[in-house]
Amino acid sequence: MKKIAILGSTGSIGQQALDVIRALPDKLQVVGLTGGKNFELLERQIGEFRPKMFCSSVRPDISYGGEFLSMEEIASHPEVDFVIVATSGKTGLSPTVAALKAGKAVALASKEVLVMAGEIVVREARLHQTQILPIDSEHSAIWQCLQGEENRPQRLFLTASGGPFYHYSQSQLAKVTPEQALHHPVWKMGRKVTVDSATLMNKGLEVIEAHWLFSFPFDSIDILIHPQSIVHSIVEFVDGFMKAQLSPPDMRLPIQYALSYPQRWLNSESPSLDWNEIHSLNFEPVDYDKFPCLKLAVDAGKSGGTYPAVLCAADEVAVELFLDRRIGFTDIAKIVQKTLKQHRNIAQPSLEEILAADAWARECAACSSPGHCEEPERRGNLGIEG
Amino acid sequence: MKKIAILGSTGSIGQQALDVIRALPDKLQVVGLTGGKNFELLERQIGEFRPKMFCSSVRPDISYGGEFLSMEEIASHPEVDFVIVATSGKTGLSPTVAALKAGKAVALASKEVLVMAGEIVVREARLHQTQILPIDSEHSAIWQCLQGEENRPQRLFLTASGGPFYHYSQSQLAKVTPEQALHHPVWKMGRKVTVDSATLMNKGLEVIEAHWLFSFPFDSIDILIHPQSIVHSIVEFVDGFMKAQLSPPDMRLPIQYALSYPQRWLNSESPSLDWNEIHSLNFEPVDYDKFPCLKLAVDAGKSGGTYPAVLCAADEVAVELFLDRRIGFTDIAKIVQKTLKQHRNIAQPSLEEILAADAWARECAACSSPGHCEEPERRGNLGIEG
Repeated sequence: MKKIAILGSTGSIGQQALDVIRALPDKLQVVGLTGGKNFELLERQIGEFRPKMFCSSVRPDISYGGEFLSMEEIASHPEVDFVIVATSGKTGLSPTVAALKAGKAVALASKEVLVMAGEIVVREARLHQTQILPIDSEHSAIWQCLQGEENRPQRLFLTASGGPFYHYSQSQLAKVTPEQALHHPVWKMGRKVTVDSATLMNKGLEVIEAHWLFSFPFDSIDILIHPQSIVHSIVEFVDGFMKAQLSPPDMRLPIQYALSYPQRWLNSESPSLDWNEIHSLNFEPVDYDKFPCLKLAVDAGKSGGTYPAVLCAADEVAVELFLDRRIGFTDIAKIVQKTLKQHRNIAQPSLEEILAADAWARECAACSSPGHCEEPERRGNLGIEG
Repeated sequence: MKKIAILGSTGSIGQQALDVIRALPDKLQVVGLTGGKNFELLERQIGEFRPKMFCSSVRPDISYGGEFLSMEEIASHPEVDFVIVATSGKTGLSPTVAALKAGKAVALASKEVLVMAGEIVVREARLHQTQILPIDSEHSAIWQCLQGEENRPQRLFLTASGGPFYHYSQSQLAKVTPEQALHHPVWKMGRKVTVDSATLMNKGLEVIEAHWLFSFPFDSIDILIHPQSIVHSIVEFVDGFMKAQLSPPDMRLPIQYALSYPQRWLNSESPSLDWNEIHSLNFEPVDYDKFPCLKLAVDAGKSGGTYPAVLCAADEVAVELFLDRRIGFTDIAKIVQKTLKQHRNIAQPSLEEILAADAWARECAACSSPGHCEEPERRGNLGIEG
């Protein structure tokens, strides 16, 4: 019986992780749950799973025998075997480090943890001889394709659905509304990730994650547009062979693999692919020019230091401004770029320096929004080349 | 340095195996070569690779220090580490058993070995704790996808290009000429295999091979038509994930993998896939009705005993008759079916019983050809439902 703590159990990934645990009650047990704003849902989850410990942004008035602890305390608690980090933004950073220091296996759904502090996180995992297991479908795919391989691969191809606007023109992109951006053609995800998928920022963050998870050079990581999201990534070996991993686009599958690894478990509720319905799998090279967030992310990853933290923070602010209808869709990249340009990088930063860069970038990005901006610009028309 | 004997070095696979060895002279060494009718080519190969031993259907008048031995002697020789069986038809059967009894690793390209005598061959490999490594692209794909997996897969999908006539009507199929059948759209192979690809008999033989190589039940092995021959097979696991292996359709790749396993070697002459040129990978379910050879093969495999040997022998005769323009394309299945119908099966046969069934089937199939046939039938119009 694996004893699991889920940090961020009320988010999209957290809820799907609970679906997996609910379907496999003889193998998996919830011992810790943490939630943020949606306390009502957390309370229902606590009622169902009766975890030994929990945490929420407000201390709730419930008594059932469980203990209220901090996220760090839960992540490093002796009763926990396995920590799923599914919090949003930078919230998961410090609990992840705490879990690794306590020698826990950590399954990461929260991209920001590796993007902001990859060097620190990977070092802690190595020092404490524990493992970081990916939950993202792309990284799970690569990880699965690498099983049993003695030699390093030559190249990684992260697939990308391309989001809802992949074939939009620049002028169409400038007019995209929050409603349109929140409607992803394939994946069901949280709001921030859904917008990041539409700008392809999400794919850029995944490149940085892949770099840290697989100690793989940026120049050997490619993006491949694959609208059906059935092939979740592809690995190329030195002998000319490639391996790909395929599945229905359903996050419960990679969540379960992280939990069952190195085994695979039958789950009668898991969806499966039907080859009578798949007639073609389509691929095309990615258009870096049309989706500048992708290149901004990869460049920030290559530059390293505090740049990736600044990228994340600026993007979070910009996406929020877009969802509040204060800037246009194509302004997201513009704000991120401006913030990165103004940043003074710190190489090999400490966790404190990373968090300071994050705070600075949030202020700086907010400044770039209309009303705060030095140069007055029309809403929805900042233009990315500007 | 791996010391290799190639049985059937003058055939298509044998020549490509020598290409691989030629490209990797610091890792691979030829110590034995055997050839059949094409002695001129064998002589050239002997001149280039100077093997310690060789064999051919005619004892040649050459002296260079190498020894003339039988195929069985070469396959089991103490100086040989690794035997590639790339002979045509049943020729490879007895040398394969000899190699396994001597504890050699055997890479199998010759389908008939496992189809005719799967039970015996697998038992010998197990008894002598050695390994049968597949060279067929489909089986190499499955084998690669299974690396590092602790659990048995749930289903295997062998891909099939469908051959040149997959979308032909019945009446078009009846008119197919040997020239058309020998022109495969994707793969460069020997004549017999090329015709077997067009009738889909080849895919049926591969199902039987997969059954023996991976101890996998027939009902869990599916065929998937994939015209581009880039995805070489797909494995489905119990948790809903699939793994696929991809590469350019080039036999040198699976040959090299069998030789390098469990490692992978860089080979500057190996082709690689270019995602700028692959826009879509297409799949469709297989049409068992249009290509009756496929079902005949799978049924013979399921029935076991001497049926698969009879299937192979009847098919070999029928393909030869077709290439000699004595029967039509759709008559191949008809002759195989007739022969199978007349056969009295022997369960768990010995090697001798298998070879006796083979001899019987050859006579019986030849009898079915026009001129020998009990029921006079028009050439090219035997009809498969007939």
